[in-house]
Amino acid sequence: QFVCVGGSPSRMKAFTTYIAEELGLASPGCDYPNICVGTDRYAMYKVGPVLSVSHGMGIPSISIMLHELIKLLYHAKCSNVTIIRIGTSGGIGLEPGSVVITKQSVDATFKPQFEQVILGKTVTRSTDLDEQLAKELMECSKEINEFNTVIGNTMCTLDFYEGQGRLDGAICLYTEEEKLQYLKEAYDSGVRNIEMESSVFAAMCNLSGVKGK
Amino acid sequence: QFVCVGGSPSRMKAFTTYIAEELGLASPGCDYPNICVGTDRYAMYKVGPVLSVSHGMGIPSISIMLHELIKLLYHAKCSNVTIIRIGTSGGIGLEPGSVVITKQSVDATFKPQFEQVILGKTVTRSTDLDEQLAKELMECSKEINEFNTVIGNTMCTLDFYEGQGRLDGAICLYTEEEKLQYLKEAYDSGVRNIEMESSVFAAMCNLSGVKGK
Repeated sequence: QFVCVGGSPSRMKAFTTYIAEELGLASPGCDYPNICVGTDRYAMYKVGPVLSVSHGMGIPSISIMLHELIKLLYHAKCSNVTIIRIGTSGGIGLEPGSVVITKQSVDATFKPQFEQVILGKTVTRSTDLDEQLAKELMECSKEINEFNTVIGNTMCTLDFYEGQGRLDGAICLYTEEEKLQYLKEAYDSGVRNIEMESSVFAAMCNLSGVKGK
Repeated sequence: QFVCVGGSPSRMKAFTTYIAEELGLASPGCDYPNICVGTDRYAMYKVGPVLSVSHGMGIPSISIMLHELIKLLYHAKCSNVTIIRIGTSGGIGLEPGSVVITKQSVDATFKPQFEQVILGKTVTRSTDLDEQLAKELMECSKEINEFNTVIGNTMCTLDFYEGQGRLDGAICLYTEEEKLQYLKEAYDSGVRNIEMESSVFAAMCNLSGVKGK
Protein backbone atom coordinates (compact mmCIF):
# COMPACT_ATOMS: atom_id res chain seq x y z
CA GLN A 1 0.00 0.00 0.00
CA PHE A 2 1.43 3.30 -1.11
CA VAL A 3 0.73 6.91 -0.30
CA CYS A 4 2.16 9.64 -2.50
CA VAL A 5 2.13 13.18 -1.16
CA GLY A 6 2.96 16.39 -3.00
CA GLY A 7 2.29 20.12 -2.74
CA SER A 8 -0.37 20.93 -5.29
CA PRO A 9 -3.91 19.46 -5.58
CA SER A 10 -3.91 19.58 -9.40
CA ARG A 11 -0.54 17.82 -9.64
CA MET A 12 -1.69 15.04 -7.29
CA LYS A 13 -4.74 14.55 -9.52
CA ALA A 14 -2.50 14.42 -12.61
CA PHE A 15 -0.29 11.91 -10.78
CA THR A 16 -3.34 9.73 -10.00
CA THR A 17 -4.34 9.69 -13.68
CA TYR A 18 -0.75 8.76 -14.60
CA ILE A 19 -0.40 5.99 -12.03
CA ALA A 20 -3.79 4.51 -13.01
CA GLU A 21 -2.45 4.13 -16.59
CA GLU A 22 0.81 2.61 -15.33
CA LEU A 23 -1.02 0.08 -13.14
CA GLY A 24 -3.47 -0.85 -15.93
CA LEU A 25 -6.38 0.42 -13.82
CA ALA A 26 -7.48 3.27 -16.10
CA SER A 27 -10.67 3.12 -18.10
CA PRO A 28 -11.59 5.54 -20.92
CA GLY A 29 -13.11 8.80 -19.72
CA CYS A 30 -12.51 7.79 -16.10
CA ASP A 31 -12.31 10.69 -13.64
CA TYR A 32 -10.89 10.53 -10.12
CA PRO A 33 -12.97 12.43 -7.57
CA ASN A 34 -11.37 14.39 -4.73
CA ILE A 35 -12.20 12.29 -1.65
CA CYS A 36 -11.67 15.33 0.63
CA VAL A 37 -14.03 17.58 -1.32
CA GLY A 38 -15.63 18.91 1.90
CA THR A 39 -12.50 20.96 2.66
CA ASP A 40 -10.31 23.16 0.47
CA ARG A 41 -7.29 22.65 2.72
CA TYR A 42 -6.11 19.40 1.06
CA ALA A 43 -7.16 17.14 -1.83
CA MET A 44 -7.02 13.32 -1.86
CA TYR A 45 -7.35 10.80 -4.70
CA LYS A 46 -7.23 6.99 -4.75
CA VAL A 47 -6.60 4.43 -7.45
CA GLY A 48 -5.94 0.76 -6.62
CA PRO A 49 -3.42 0.55 -3.77
CA VAL A 50 -2.19 4.14 -4.24
CA LEU A 51 -3.52 7.08 -2.25
CA SER A 52 -2.40 10.56 -3.45
CA VAL A 53 -2.69 13.54 -1.13
CA SER A 54 -1.78 17.22 -1.52
CA HIS A 55 -0.13 18.90 1.46
CA GLY A 56 0.20 22.61 0.64
CA MET A 57 3.48 24.42 1.16
CA GLY A 58 5.89 24.19 4.07
CA ILE A 59 6.49 22.15 7.22
CA PRO A 60 3.42 23.35 9.20
CA SER A 61 1.03 22.53 6.33
CA ILE A 62 2.37 19.02 5.59
CA SER A 63 2.61 18.30 9.33
CA ILE A 64 -1.13 18.80 9.87
CA MET A 65 -1.90 16.55 6.90
CA LEU A 66 0.51 13.81 8.05
CA HIS A 67 -1.00 13.72 11.58
CA GLU A 68 -4.42 13.22 10.03
CA LEU A 69 -3.23 10.80 7.32
CA ILE A 70 -1.40 8.58 9.83
CA LYS A 71 -4.53 8.43 12.02
CA LEU A 72 -6.62 7.59 8.93
CA LEU A 73 -4.25 4.77 7.89
CA TYR A 74 -4.33 3.39 11.44
CA HIS A 75 -8.12 3.35 11.68
CA ALA A 76 -8.37 1.88 8.14
CA LYS A 77 -6.09 -0.95 9.42
CA CYS A 78 -3.55 -0.36 6.61
CA SER A 79 -0.28 -2.24 7.12
CA ASN A 80 3.11 -2.21 5.40
CA VAL A 81 2.55 1.33 4.18
CA THR A 82 5.16 3.22 2.15
CA ILE A 83 4.79 7.01 1.88
CA ILE A 84 6.66 8.80 -0.90
CA ARG A 85 6.84 12.58 -1.15
CA ILE A 86 7.21 13.80 -4.74
CA GLY A 87 7.52 17.38 -5.87
CA THR A 88 9.50 20.09 -7.55
CA SER A 89 12.58 21.40 -5.75
CA GLY A 90 15.53 23.65 -6.41
CA GLY A 91 18.56 21.65 -7.58
CA ILE A 92 22.15 22.52 -6.65
CA GLY A 93 24.85 21.65 -9.19
CA LEU A 94 22.49 19.42 -11.20
CA GLU A 95 21.12 19.76 -14.70
CA PRO A 96 17.47 20.95 -14.77
CA GLY A 97 15.02 18.05 -14.80
CA SER A 98 17.18 15.79 -12.63
CA VAL A 99 15.55 13.70 -9.92
CA VAL A 100 17.03 13.65 -6.41
CA ILE A 101 16.27 10.66 -4.19
CA THR A 102 16.74 11.92 -0.63
CA LYS A 103 19.33 10.14 1.52
CA GLN A 104 18.95 12.45 4.50
CA SER A 105 16.90 15.56 4.99
CA VAL A 106 19.08 18.31 6.48
CA ASP A 107 18.18 21.69 7.98
CA ALA A 108 19.41 25.12 6.82
CA THR A 109 22.69 24.54 8.67
CA PHE A 110 23.14 21.15 6.91
CA LYS A 111 22.41 19.04 10.03
CA PRO A 112 20.28 15.88 9.58
CA GLN A 113 17.72 16.89 12.17
CA PHE A 114 14.33 18.53 12.62
CA GLU A 115 13.92 20.96 15.50
CA GLN A 116 10.38 21.27 16.75
CA VAL A 117 8.95 23.32 19.64
CA ILE A 118 6.59 21.22 21.79
CA LEU A 119 4.90 22.93 24.74
CA GLY A 120 7.50 25.70 24.50
CA LYS A 121 10.52 23.36 24.60
CA THR A 122 12.77 22.56 21.62
CA VAL A 123 12.85 18.87 20.70
CA THR A 124 15.28 17.52 18.08
CA ARG A 125 14.17 14.62 15.90
CA SER A 126 16.03 12.40 13.43
CA THR A 127 15.42 12.87 9.70
CA ASP A 128 16.93 9.62 8.40
CA LEU A 129 14.97 7.96 5.61
CA ASP A 130 14.71 4.33 4.51
CA GLU A 131 18.03 3.39 2.84
CA GLN A 132 16.76 0.25 1.15
CA LEU A 133 13.92 2.20 -0.48
CA ALA A 134 16.42 4.76 -1.85
CA LYS A 135 18.38 1.92 -3.50
CA GLU A 136 15.22 0.38 -4.96
CA LEU A 137 14.11 3.72 -6.40
CA MET A 138 17.59 4.23 -7.89
CA GLU A 139 17.34 0.79 -9.53
CA CYS A 140 13.93 1.73 -11.00
CA SER A 141 15.39 4.89 -12.44
CA LYS A 142 18.25 2.95 -14.05
CA GLU A 143 15.78 0.51 -15.63
CA ILE A 144 13.60 3.32 -17.02
CA ASN A 145 16.68 5.34 -18.07
CA GLU A 146 14.67 8.45 -18.92
CA PHE A 147 16.11 11.12 -16.65
CA ASN A 148 19.22 11.89 -14.64
CA THR A 149 18.79 10.57 -11.08
CA VAL A 150 21.07 10.99 -8.06
CA ILE A 151 20.92 10.03 -4.39
CA GLY A 152 21.81 13.04 -2.24
CA ASN A 153 20.87 15.12 0.75
CA THR A 154 17.84 17.38 0.60
CA MET A 155 17.88 20.69 2.48
CA CYS A 156 14.55 21.63 4.04
CA THR A 157 14.01 25.32 4.79
CA LEU A 158 11.21 27.20 6.52
CA ASP A 159 11.37 30.06 4.06
CA PHE A 160 11.36 30.12 0.25
CA TYR A 161 12.82 33.55 -0.61
CA GLU A 162 15.29 34.55 2.11
CA GLY A 163 15.66 31.00 3.49
CA GLN A 164 16.87 29.64 0.12
CA GLY A 165 19.01 32.63 -0.83
CA ARG A 166 16.74 34.05 -3.53
CA LEU A 167 17.46 37.58 -4.76
CA ASP A 168 13.96 38.36 -6.11
CA GLY A 169 11.80 38.43 -2.96
CA ALA A 170 10.21 41.59 -1.52
CA ILE A 171 12.93 41.60 1.14
CA CYS A 172 16.59 40.72 0.45
CA LEU A 173 19.36 41.89 2.77
CA TYR A 174 22.33 39.91 1.38
CA THR A 175 24.44 40.02 -1.78
CA GLU A 176 24.58 37.61 -4.71
CA GLU A 177 28.09 36.68 -3.60
CA GLU A 178 26.88 35.71 -0.10
CA LYS A 179 24.07 33.68 -1.66
CA LEU A 180 26.47 31.76 -3.93
CA GLN A 181 28.84 31.14 -1.01
CA TYR A 182 25.95 29.62 1.01
CA LEU A 183 24.82 27.39 -1.87
CA LYS A 184 28.43 26.24 -2.38
CA GLU A 185 28.67 25.29 1.31
CA ALA A 186 25.39 23.40 0.96
CA TYR A 187 26.72 21.50 -2.09
CA ASP A 188 30.01 20.69 -0.36
CA SER A 189 28.07 19.22 2.60
CA GLY A 190 26.23 16.83 0.24
CA VAL A 191 23.04 18.82 -0.44
CA ARG A 192 21.71 18.30 -3.98
CA ASN A 193 18.31 19.97 -3.74
CA ILE A 194 16.25 22.34 -1.56
CA GLU A 195 12.57 22.14 -0.63
CA MET A 196 10.28 22.90 2.31
CA GLU A 197 8.69 19.72 3.71
CA SER A 198 11.16 16.80 3.88
CA SER A 199 12.41 17.22 7.47
CA VAL A 200 9.08 16.92 9.26
CA PHE A 201 8.05 14.23 6.74
CA ALA A 202 11.11 12.14 7.66
CA ALA A 203 10.71 12.80 11.40
CA MET A 204 7.05 11.78 11.41
CA CYS A 205 7.65 8.65 9.29
CA ASN A 206 10.36 7.60 11.76
CA LEU A 207 8.21 8.22 14.83
CA SER A 208 5.12 6.48 13.48
CA GLY A 209 6.96 3.49 11.96
CA VAL A 210 5.92 4.18 8.37
CA LYS A 211 8.44 3.62 5.56
CA GLY A 212 9.06 7.03 4.03
CA LYS A 213 11.03 8.52 1.16
CA GLN B 1 -6.52 50.46 -0.01
CA PHE B 2 -7.00 47.27 1.94
CA VAL B 3 -5.76 43.74 1.62
CA CYS B 4 -7.39 40.98 3.66
CA VAL B 5 -5.56 37.68 3.91
CA GLY B 6 -6.81 34.40 5.37
CA GLY B 7 -6.09 30.68 5.16
CA SER B 8 -8.77 29.19 2.96
CA PRO B 9 -9.67 30.09 -0.68
CA SER B 10 -13.40 29.47 -0.17
CA ARG B 11 -13.51 31.65 2.94
CA MET B 12 -11.75 34.52 1.17
CA LYS B 13 -14.33 34.28 -1.61
CA ALA B 14 -17.14 34.34 0.96
CA PHE B 15 -15.47 37.36 2.59
CA THR B 16 -15.33 39.15 -0.78
CA THR B 17 -19.07 38.58 -1.31
CA TYR B 18 -19.73 39.89 2.22
CA ILE B 19 -17.56 43.00 1.88
CA ALA B 20 -19.11 43.83 -1.52
CA GLU B 21 -22.53 43.92 0.20
CA GLU B 22 -21.16 46.05 3.06
CA LEU B 23 -19.57 48.55 0.65
CA GLY B 24 -22.70 48.76 -1.52
CA LEU B 25 -20.75 47.36 -4.49
CA ALA B 26 -22.69 44.12 -4.93
CA SER B 27 -25.01 43.57 -7.86
CA PRO B 28 -27.57 40.72 -8.11
CA GLY B 29 -26.07 37.43 -9.33
CA CYS B 30 -22.60 38.96 -9.32
CA ASP B 31 -19.76 36.44 -9.04
CA TYR B 32 -16.17 37.25 -8.09
CA PRO B 33 -13.61 35.41 -10.22
CA ASN B 34 -10.36 34.08 -8.77
CA ILE B 35 -7.71 36.41 -10.23
CA CYS B 36 -4.99 33.79 -9.61
CA VAL B 37 -6.84 30.99 -11.41
CA GLY B 38 -3.65 29.85 -13.20
CA THR B 39 -2.27 28.40 -9.95
CA ASP B 40 -3.90 26.29 -7.24
CA ARG B 41 -1.43 27.51 -4.60
CA TYR B 42 -3.37 30.65 -3.67
CA ALA B 43 -6.66 32.37 -4.63
CA MET B 44 -7.20 36.12 -4.98
CA TYR B 45 -10.40 38.20 -5.29
CA LYS B 46 -10.97 41.94 -5.64
CA VAL B 47 -13.94 44.20 -5.01
CA GLY B 48 -13.58 48.01 -4.93
CA PRO B 49 -10.52 48.95 -2.84
CA VAL B 50 -10.36 45.53 -1.11
CA LEU B 51 -8.11 42.70 -2.29
CA SER B 52 -8.67 39.30 -0.59
CA VAL B 53 -5.99 36.62 -0.80
CA SER B 54 -5.75 33.10 0.62
CA HIS B 55 -2.40 32.07 2.09
CA GLY B 56 -2.64 28.38 2.98
CA MET B 57 -1.50 27.14 6.38
CA GLY B 58 1.58 28.09 8.34
CA ILE B 59 4.46 30.57 8.28
CA PRO B 60 6.23 29.22 5.15
CA SER B 61 3.05 29.30 3.07
CA ILE B 62 1.95 32.85 4.04
CA SER B 63 5.56 34.07 3.70
CA ILE B 64 5.76 33.10 0.01
CA MET B 65 2.42 34.82 -0.65
CA LEU B 66 3.43 38.01 1.22
CA HIS B 67 6.71 38.32 -0.71
CA GLU B 68 4.74 38.12 -3.97
CA LEU B 69 1.87 40.33 -2.75
CA ILE B 70 4.21 43.09 -1.55
CA LYS B 71 6.01 43.06 -4.93
CA LEU B 72 2.62 43.20 -6.70
CA LEU B 73 1.44 46.18 -4.60
CA TYR B 74 4.74 47.95 -5.29
CA HIS B 75 4.56 47.50 -9.07
CA ALA B 76 0.85 48.44 -9.05
CA LYS B 77 1.93 51.70 -7.32
CA CYS B 78 -0.47 51.15 -4.40
CA SER B 79 0.12 53.52 -1.49
CA ASN B 80 -1.18 53.77 2.06
CA VAL B 81 -1.95 50.04 2.13
CA THR B 82 -3.39 48.31 5.20
CA ILE B 83 -3.16 44.50 5.35
CA ILE B 84 -5.43 42.66 7.78
CA ARG B 85 -5.12 38.95 8.47
CA ILE B 86 -8.43 37.35 9.44
CA GLY B 87 -8.99 33.74 10.36
CA THR B 88 -10.04 31.16 12.88
CA SER B 89 -7.74 30.55 15.83
CA GLY B 90 -7.74 28.69 19.11
CA GLY B 91 -8.86 30.92 21.99
CA ILE B 92 -7.43 30.69 25.51
CA GLY B 93 -9.75 31.61 28.37
CA LEU B 94 -12.30 33.20 26.02
CA GLU B 95 -15.85 32.24 25.17
CA PRO B 96 -16.15 30.54 21.74
CA GLY B 97 -16.86 33.04 18.95
CA SER B 98 -14.81 35.83 20.52
CA VAL B 99 -12.62 38.00 18.29
CA VAL B 100 -9.02 38.71 19.31
CA ILE B 101 -7.33 41.81 17.90
CA THR B 102 -3.61 41.08 18.07
CA LYS B 103 -1.47 43.48 20.12
CA GLN B 104 1.74 41.54 19.65
CA SER B 105 2.46 38.24 17.96
CA VAL B 106 4.56 36.05 20.26
CA ASP B 107 6.42 32.79 19.63
CA ALA B 108 5.91 29.46 21.43
CA THR B 109 8.01 30.74 24.35
CA PHE B 110 5.83 33.90 24.57
CA LYS B 111 8.50 36.26 23.20
CA PRO B 112 7.39 39.02 20.75
CA GLN B 113 9.80 37.98 18.01
CA PHE B 114 10.11 35.94 14.85
CA GLU B 115 13.24 33.85 14.37
CA GLN B 116 14.14 33.21 10.78
CA VAL B 117 17.11 31.36 9.27
CA ILE B 118 18.65 33.35 6.40
CA LEU B 119 21.62 31.81 4.56
CA GLY B 120 22.06 29.43 7.51
CA LYS B 121 22.16 32.17 10.18
CA THR B 122 19.38 32.89 12.67
CA VAL B 123 17.94 36.42 12.40
CA THR B 124 15.44 37.75 14.95
CA ARG B 125 12.76 40.18 13.78
CA SER B 126 10.22 42.30 15.63
CA THR B 127 6.54 41.28 15.58
CA ASP B 128 4.96 44.52 16.81
CA LEU B 129 1.77 45.52 15.02
CA ASP B 130 0.14 48.91 14.43
CA GLU B 131 -1.29 50.08 17.80
CA GLN B 132 -3.54 52.78 16.37
CA LEU B 133 -5.17 50.25 14.02
CA ALA B 134 -5.88 47.93 16.97
CA LYS B 135 -7.70 50.77 18.77
CA GLU B 136 -9.71 51.65 15.63
CA LEU B 137 -10.76 48.02 15.16
CA MET B 138 -11.78 47.83 18.83
CA GLU B 139 -13.92 50.97 18.37
CA CYS B 140 -15.59 49.38 15.32
CA SER B 141 -16.40 46.28 17.34
CA LYS B 142 -17.96 48.40 20.12
CA GLU B 143 -20.12 50.24 17.57
CA ILE B 144 -21.33 46.99 15.97
CA ASN B 145 -21.73 45.32 19.38
CA GLU B 146 -22.34 41.88 17.90
CA PHE B 147 -19.56 39.75 19.38
CA ASN B 148 -17.13 39.70 22.29
CA THR B 149 -13.86 41.39 21.24
CA VAL B 150 -10.58 41.68 23.13
CA ILE B 151 -7.13 43.07 22.42
CA GLY B 152 -4.47 40.52 23.41
CA ASN B 153 -1.34 38.72 22.36
CA THR B 154 -1.49 36.04 19.69
CA MET B 155 0.83 33.05 19.91
CA CYS B 156 2.14 31.85 16.55
CA THR B 157 3.34 28.23 16.40
CA LEU B 158 5.02 26.20 13.65
CA ASP B 159 3.00 23.10 14.50
CA PHE B 160 -0.72 22.56 14.99
CA TYR B 161 -0.92 19.31 16.95
CA GLU B 162 2.17 19.01 19.19
CA GLY B 163 3.05 22.72 18.93
CA GLN B 164 -0.30 23.81 20.36
CA GLY B 165 -0.58 21.05 22.98
CA ARG B 166 -3.28 18.99 21.25
CA LEU B 167 -3.90 15.48 22.57
CA ASP B 168 -5.51 14.04 19.41
CA GLY B 169 -2.63 14.06 16.88
CA ALA B 170 -0.94 10.91 15.54
CA ILE B 171 1.98 11.63 17.89
CA CYS B 172 1.56 12.94 21.45
CA LEU B 173 4.32 12.47 24.04
CA TYR B 174 3.00 14.67 26.89
CA THR B 175 0.13 14.45 29.38
CA GLU B 176 -3.09 16.48 29.57
CA GLU B 177 -1.75 18.03 32.78
CA GLU B 178 1.42 19.27 31.01
CA LYS B 179 -0.71 20.66 28.19
CA LEU B 180 -2.95 22.61 30.59
CA GLN B 181 0.08 23.92 32.48
CA TYR B 182 1.55 25.26 29.18
CA LEU B 183 -1.73 26.91 28.15
CA LYS B 184 -2.01 28.49 31.62
CA GLU B 185 1.50 29.93 31.28
CA ALA B 186 0.54 31.28 27.84
CA TYR B 187 -2.58 32.93 29.29
CA ASP B 188 -0.64 34.43 32.21
CA SER B 189 1.84 35.97 29.75
CA GLY B 190 -1.02 37.75 27.93
CA VAL B 191 -1.76 35.25 25.13
CA ARG B 192 -5.44 35.11 24.19
CA ASN B 193 -5.34 33.02 21.03
CA ILE B 194 -3.08 30.68 19.02
CA GLU B 195 -2.60 30.46 15.27
CA MET B 196 0.16 29.77 12.74
CA GLU B 197 0.90 32.84 10.58
CA SER B 198 0.92 36.07 12.61
CA SER B 199 4.64 36.29 13.45
CA VAL B 200 6.00 36.35 9.89
CA PHE B 201 3.02 38.51 8.87
CA ALA B 202 3.96 41.11 11.49
CA ALA B 203 7.69 40.89 10.72
CA MET B 204 7.16 41.36 6.98
CA CYS B 205 4.68 44.25 7.43
CA ASN B 206 7.27 45.99 9.65
CA LEU B 207 10.13 45.46 7.21
CA SER B 208 8.22 46.56 4.13
CA GLY B 209 6.48 49.56 5.75
CA VAL B 210 2.93 48.25 5.28
CA LYS B 211 0.38 48.84 8.04
CA GLY B 212 -0.58 45.39 9.28
CA LYS B 213 -2.99 43.83 11.79
